[in-house]
Amino acid sequence: MIIIMKKEATEDQVTKVYFKIKNLGLTAQISKGEERSIVGVIGDLRKVDKESFKMLPGVEKIISILKPYKLASREFKPHDTVIDVKGVKIGGNEIVVMAGPCAIENEEILLDAAKKVKAAGAKILRGSAYKPRTSPYAFQGLGEEGLKIMKKVGKKTGLVTETEVMDVRNVELVSNYVDIVRIGTRNMQNFDLLKEVGKIKNPIILKRGMSATIEELLMSAEYIMSEGNHNVILCERGIRTFETSTRNTLDLSAIPVLKELSHLPVIVDPSHSSGKRNLVLPMSRAAIAAGADGLIIEVHPKPEEALCDGPQQILPDQFSKLMKELNQIAKAIGRKI
Amino acid sequence: MIIIMKKEATEDQVTKVYFKIKNLGLTAQISKGEERSIVGVIGDLRKVDKESFKMLPGVEKIISILKPYKLASREFKPHDTVIDVKGVKIGGNEIVVMAGPCAIENEEILLDAAKKVKAAGAKILRGSAYKPRTSPYAFQGLGEEGLKIMKKVGKKTGLVTETEVMDVRNVELVSNYVDIVRIGTRNMQNFDLLKEVGKIKNPIILKRGMSATIEELLMSAEYIMSEGNHNVILCERGIRTFETSTRNTLDLSAIPVLKELSHLPVIVDPSHSSGKRNLVLPMSRAAIAAGADGLIIEVHPKPEEALCDGPQQILPDQFSKLMKELNQIAKAIGRKI
Amino acid sequence: MIIIMKKEATEDQVTKVYFKIKNLGLTAQISKGEERSIVGVIGDLRKVDKESFKMLPGVEKIISILKPYKLASREFKPHDTVIDVKGVKIGGNEIVVMAGPCAIENEEILLDAAKKVKAAGAKILRGSAYKPRTSPYAFQGLGEEGLKIMKKVGKKTGLVTETEVMDVRNVELVSNYVDIVRIGTRNMQNFDLLKEVGKIKNPIILKRGMSATIEELLMSAEYIMSEGNHNVILCERGIRTFETSTRNTLDLSAIPVLKELSHLPVIVDPSHSSGKRNLVLPMSRAAIAAGADGLIIEVHPKPEEALCDGPQQILPDQFSKLMKELNQIAKAIGRKI
Amino acid sequence: MIIIMKKEATEDQVTKVYFKIKNLGLTAQISKGEERSIVGVIGDLRKVDKESFKMLPGVEKIISILKPYKLASREFKPHDTVIDVKGVKIGGNEIVVMAGPCAIENEEILLDAAKKVKAAGAKILRGSAYKPRTSPYAFQGLGEEGLKIMKKVGKKTGLVTETEVMDVRNVELVSNYVDIVRIGTRNMQNFDLLKEVGKIKNPIILKRGMSATIEELLMSAEYIMSEGNHNVILCERGIRTFETSTRNTLDLSAIPVLKELSHLPVIVDPSHSSGKRNLVLPMSRAAIAAGADGLIIEVHPKPEEALCDGPQQILPDQFSKLMKELNQIAKAIGRKI
Repeated sequence: MIIIMKKEATEDQVTKVYFKIKNLGLTAQISKGEERSIVGVIGDLRKVDKESFKMLPGVEKIISILKPYKLASREFKPHDTVIDVKGVKIGGNEIVVMAGPCAIENEEILLDAAKKVKAAGAKILRGSAYKPRTSPYAFQGLGEEGLKIMKKVGKKTGLVTETEVMDVRNVELVSNYVDIVRIGTRNMQNFDLLKEVGKIKNPIILKRGMSATIEELLMSAEYIMSEGNHNVILCERGIRTFETSTRNTLDLSAIPVLKELSHLPVIVDPSHSSGKRNLVLPMSRAAIAAGADGLIIEVHPKPEEALCDGPQQILPDQFSKLMKELNQIAKAIGRKI
Repeated sequence: MIIIMKKEATEDQVTKVYFKIKNLGLTAQISKGEERSIVGVIGDLRKVDKESFKMLPGVEKIISILKPYKLASREFKPHDTVIDVKGVKIGGNEIVVMAGPCAIENEEILLDAAKKVKAAGAKILRGSAYKPRTSPYAFQGLGEEGLKIMKKVGKKTGLVTETEVMDVRNVELVSNYVDIVRIGTRNMQNFDLLKEVGKIKNPIILKRGMSATIEELLMSAEYIMSEGNHNVILCERGIRTFETSTRNTLDLSAIPVLKELSHLPVIVDPSHSSGKRNLVLPMSRAAIAAGADGLIIEVHPKPEEALCDGPQQILPDQFSKLMKELNQIAKAIGRKI
Repeated sequence: MIIIMKKEATEDQVTKVYFKIKNLGLTAQISKGEERSIVGVIGDLRKVDKESFKMLPGVEKIISILKPYKLASREFKPHDTVIDVKGVKIGGNEIVVMAGPCAIENEEILLDAAKKVKAAGAKILRGSAYKPRTSPYAFQGLGEEGLKIMKKVGKKTGLVTETEVMDVRNVELVSNYVDIVRIGTRNMQNFDLLKEVGKIKNPIILKRGMSATIEELLMSAEYIMSEGNHNVILCERGIRTFETSTRNTLDLSAIPVLKELSHLPVIVDPSHSSGKRNLVLPMSRAAIAAGADGLIIEVHPKPEEALCDGPQQILPDQFSKLMKELNQIAKAIGRKI
Repeated sequence: MIIIMKKEATEDQVTKVYFKIKNLGLTAQISKGEERSIVGVIGDLRKVDKESFKMLPGVEKIISILKPYKLASREFKPHDTVIDVKGVKIGGNEIVVMAGPCAIENEEILLDAAKKVKAAGAKILRGSAYKPRTSPYAFQGLGEEGLKIMKKVGKKTGLVTETEVMDVRNVELVSNYVDIVRIGTRNMQNFDLLKEVGKIKNPIILKRGMSATIEELLMSAEYIMSEGNHNVILCERGIRTFETSTRNTLDLSAIPVLKELSHLPVIVDPSHSSGKRNLVLPMSRAAIAAGADGLIIEVHPKPEEALCDGPQQILPDQFSKLMKELNQIAKAIGRKI
């Protein structure tokens, strides 16, 4: 941390800043310029309230140098984290595709979808039993009944399973039924939920909040990791902007930025940001070309009868064709799918 | 709802749309223009998945006319809701000011702050026992210990009390200790939490999510109200924009917009959006001038020693002076404080 | 400017940074911490390309301390600029209201509006002869014909006049017809236009770009001032955000922020951001309460017949009532109108 | 256009709406629902001020069905526009890459860059003689001198040339020196400039405003086209969002959206949004995978000595390697480069 003093700051004010630093057990280093003094602070500042320095008389500005996250940072762990779920490796050279319906509706549909996405090359089956809906009057998901279906279909098809958890009280339940647990965009800063999933063993897909910065996403990963669960998969899913022709704006630059700052795997959800089927395909291709480690795509055998988000769910045939294109793009950048 | 068919839509496609509407128990009304057909849908559409119509062949666009919230709407209840908490009325002609420290730190500080804000005219004491912090390493609040202090200080001073709840498992606990329960900005779409506070009797302050639209705020109020708790106080606290000179952009236009769409009281938090003490004063004045029913302001006797958010907490003397100015502004628009 | 070197930066890399600074005629000051070196740079950096330092090997980050604008800054000129236009003072204790129709349509309407806003207390008549329209097919304004009408009506009523200029080729023309020249939101970074109005004598209203930061607004003021015209009036008019219930989000926090950073007068346009008549009134009141030096409001005697922006233009009667309320609010904060 | 009347609208109010439509020479069609009436309007509404209907008593809402642009729309011209500049075809199956330094600095550097990008496969040489800079103190470009250099280098290398025009007074000059004329992001709604470049013959690259919606971009294209110049190349270059880790957020979804709405070619500028060299490469790959017809990339032989934007300019070697990858990705989606 660097503390920049005002032009008119007195000797006495600089001294006070100096002693506040010392009292926190940190090292201070004063450098006097012609115009103003600058105080460098050395030590682990993650637990220090930087704001409190802003209020000291004579202080103009506080500048953080150290990143506020540690466990999630590439500085802390230079090599890519590769998460192994029943043999499926996420974060390695091979790109992993997760696919399935938005919501778990019944066993028949889920099994149908599962078989088809597996045939096309998907390794992980997605589907929600708990649905965060803007309206209290909308379909809220099947709950535990849905979890049971997911487990059954996972067994039948041999696919790894994943689903969302929204309520701290369901974390254990969900973790018993599925392989991978997902934190949705609206819960990225539900800190109690983050702590709770930090205590289970399942890998966690952490979706970026729709108006969260990349730094905040990494801080939320840090919450989970600081509780002991280091298997976090970061997921870009679109951010809220002024543009109204798409539901959200998929921020693909987040992929290389996250890869530079963190060692965690990064996947992309092209379905929710677009809200439209004909955007899912080009954005899936673009995500792979930008360096994503995986995709999570909504596929439904009969989207026009889906209980939610029909327009963004693609057909199994479209998915199958897409997988072939993705395969070519993966090759172009030296990866495989 | 209005369904606009494509120019090239066939007779048959229009008929299919017609029957889908009928099958949902709704009334359809087809109007054939020279260029295209338009189908009007009549009936309660809140529980219908509008998205599913988008996928029918020949459909170009779906337009909702009905607002997606009901209980929260002014159409449903034309007169302003006035919430009475131990004699303090929120939403009436009198403007209500809530004040106190960001976090409950100990009894001494809270009592000191409480006495001073009461003397200046505040009716409600604010303070958090549970703190949502971006970093897992930051001070997370005193928990139940803090709730006890709040209750004690409330009793001693006769002030109405309020505090935040973050975890569904703490809703009952919190509701027993304080008068008003607050849902923070990061939890505005924590739907399980909304349902839970919908079951208690305490009035709820619902803070707007920092990237939530006004419609989404009202939908979240609807979640609480649909569980039975109609005492919801809406709170504008700043939205996330590209501007970096303030922490968030306080959206004061939200006040007249909310007042038009809803009967619920609207208050403003000028402390969190600005992040700076010298912005709290002008924005408090502006909020009252724009028609807010109340304010929730952070006041701390010694902000430079505060355990969090020091720079945005104002001093009791500043608060006292502010209250006098607010009083004048309230008079200018025919209200009192 | 402070240059933060990487942890792993070599002695040699620090030396290279040092000499690059020296070669630019600036002073460098190296401070070696336990973890990393920091290089302070002293001198006038406004003409230095800071980006070029980012690319030197071993450099992690560049931090600017000096503000990039000078003439517009309060550091440069501590006292408020008060602009006197024919005896009307903008930026002093008295709040100035500018009012009139969106576009100049004909002499009759403009004169009618002018008389009415003058009677209510407005000092300056607004009206556009050149209209920036999103569509090439929309009414584009009367051009020079409109300027003539504005001049005539100004003379008849004794009101100070103002209008927008969009095209560098019209700057001289416009400056001859009206007293105050306005740069619209879409031209805030039309740098050639800024330079051109920097050469005339008329005071300039500089509207904030709808997605410009406060710093960029001040940089645009700097463009005008660096050409010799120091009479710049900054105007907040709403920024583009994700919220769709208002056309733009009026950023009233910009007022105190601008007042702190700059000595220039700050006015607010409550008409364009809201797009709706019933928002203009509360937002006008709020702007004054937040410390604005003036308002620019659209008033039209028959908004339902206006050639543009009818819904946001208020009626003369509403304006008259508003002026009385504003007067009360001005008093509450120790100013007059 | 559809006019939705309020629930409580009277027969008389509906009739007034009806006659206002008739008087504009349009056809009205009233449809009475159980709850409310809806009035459909048929005819060319592009020149009608829709806002004026909003103010009629009894009107709740106006809904546009027709797109506000015509010449730019795919409805108007179903087949892709392919622009031929000296044999280089933009908008066809072949992807076109434009490359070169940010600014034209001198003949030596430009020629060096030109030869290298040509060798790597670029068809068009980019470079600015006029630079829109946030600061009046920054390097503003070489002006006409730069245009001369560009022309010379174009001749020597046989590359098609392109450069930016900022000032209406320079349009003719610029059009004489280079092949393709570029409108920068800050001038996307400089309507006088759009009209002026609409009168020349050179193809125009129209960059999306950094906070412009896709519809506004198409409206700006319409401005150019309505003056007679139909050779418009749309360019996505990043939009302004809350995210601060990149300079702007590259909105790649804009590519498929624009392709659906318009017949014009769409290219992407990956250099300006990222502001960082290591983001240019993945975002270039992603743009091609998402369906872009071309790229405009900043390449500089010595970025560390560049007069502007050094950190975002890539090296000729990096560009050469990138072109090979792009070639593979183009093949994967059935195109070539």
